[in-house]
Amino acid sequence: MKIDILTIFPQMFNGPLSESLIGKAANKGILEINVTDIRSFSKDKHKKVDDKPFGGGVGMVLKPEPVYDALKSVGVKKKNKEYKNSFAKPLVIYMSPQGKTLNSDLVKNLAKYKHIVFLCGHYEGVDERIMNFVDEEISVGDYVLTGGEIPAMIVTDAVARMIPGVVKEEDSVKNDSFYNGLLDYPHYTRPAVFKKFKVPEVLLSGDHKKIENWRKNEALKRTLQRRPDLIKK
Amino acid sequence: MKIDILTIFPQMFNGPLSESLIGKAANKGILEINVTDIRSFSKDKHKKVDDKPFGGGVGMVLKPEPVYDALKSVGVKKKNKEYKNSFAKPLVIYMSPQGKTLNSDLVKNLAKYKHIVFLCGHYEGVDERIMNFVDEEISVGDYVLTGGEIPAMIVTDAVARMIPGVVKEEDSVKNDSFYNGLLDYPHYTRPAVFKKFKVPEVLLSGDHKKIENWRKNEALKRTLQRRPDLIKK
Repeated sequence: MKIDILTIFPQMFNGPLSESLIGKAANKGILEINVTDIRSFSKDKHKKVDDKPFGGGVGMVLKPEPVYDALKSVGVKKKNKEYKNSFAKPLVIYMSPQGKTLNSDLVKNLAKYKHIVFLCGHYEGVDERIMNFVDEEISVGDYVLTGGEIPAMIVTDAVARMIPGVVKEEDSVKNDSFYNGLLDYPHYTRPAVFKKFKVPEVLLSGDHKKIENWRKNEALKRTLQRRPDLIKK
Repeated sequence: MKIDILTIFPQMFNGPLSESLIGKAANKGILEINVTDIRSFSKDKHKKVDDKPFGGGVGMVLKPEPVYDALKSVGVKKKNKEYKNSFAKPLVIYMSPQGKTLNSDLVKNLAKYKHIVFLCGHYEGVDERIMNFVDEEISVGDYVLTGGEIPAMIVTDAVARMIPGVVKEEDSVKNDSFYNGLLDYPHYTRPAVFKKFKVPEVLLSGDHKKIENWRKNEALKRTLQRRPDLIKK
């Protein structure tokens, strides 16, 4: 999968996408991630990319021209929006609190695409007319952030985990929270006694049937206690 | 506000927290962010911090000892959990998909603390017994990620924006999505005509009353169309 990230803060991506599983996937060639500086498409002599909002009010808005030119530079076509269902075309995602809320099902769907372009807003966001070239507006949750950069990292990480070969043990993905509509069960490792706290005895029993049942029960109990809304779904 | 981040991937934080508003707030001394490598507390000669889960199954679990020692090193006390309501004590947050879902109200509440400690899980998470020293489990949304690092950046960014002096125009925070239970209205900037797309005429009218009404209407319309669940709340 190819991922293009368009941002006015390219240096934010230095650490997060080169470490851990994502970094390994990039090294193995399973994932290609490119970060493009929107500012390099500014035709202004001061490399300005934002301007005051029409109609007044606080904050700055990202201008449409440099954003449009950045989109074009990574292969987004004028009629990109009209090819809704082709997994081959670049899918343009604008990260914004106004978008569809990211969840496990949306992640699985995004993982089908070969090329995803993340447009990161900043300040008050991008000029609304850019939405004519955007396929999906996605929000990572009901809170507001400084920009779309960390959200783009979130989606990249979540989607990358779904690509075969990124997570070593694919079973591990299937046991994850939300994958089957439940929260994950609790995990324990050595030592069996830490401070005054003991590992639940069943986990030391060696009885695999019993352990499996205990884990299923814990996952269900936890989901009922903490997220009854997931059970209703 | 002081923020401590405990992680086995400290380098992930190099870019994200030194750029943009968060970086500026740190430079101004409004925000102090320290990243601690949990691995440096491993007593193992290979600096191992994880081990196989009790009861079998795939994946690795972060061992309790180095995590506990890392917590102690940033000032977390044994009885930390018992002082629930003091904003002065370090609030220990474990980032996990099993936690309470982050939203705008939770962000406002976290912003009252003077010292927040983020514990980032990785692989299958930390040994469950560490929850005896954790005050809050927080999830950034209903999806699974490689680790708690990017989620810790999310919470740091969202909370930092609430601290006076971080966002230049405080009005800007109050107009944000979710702050008043609605999504934000669309923003436009120059040029008035971009490609074939024009800015809505009302924004060029200079009639402030009319512009304010239009914006309120757009925010409401958008919320009704995209997130009727927010209106119900």
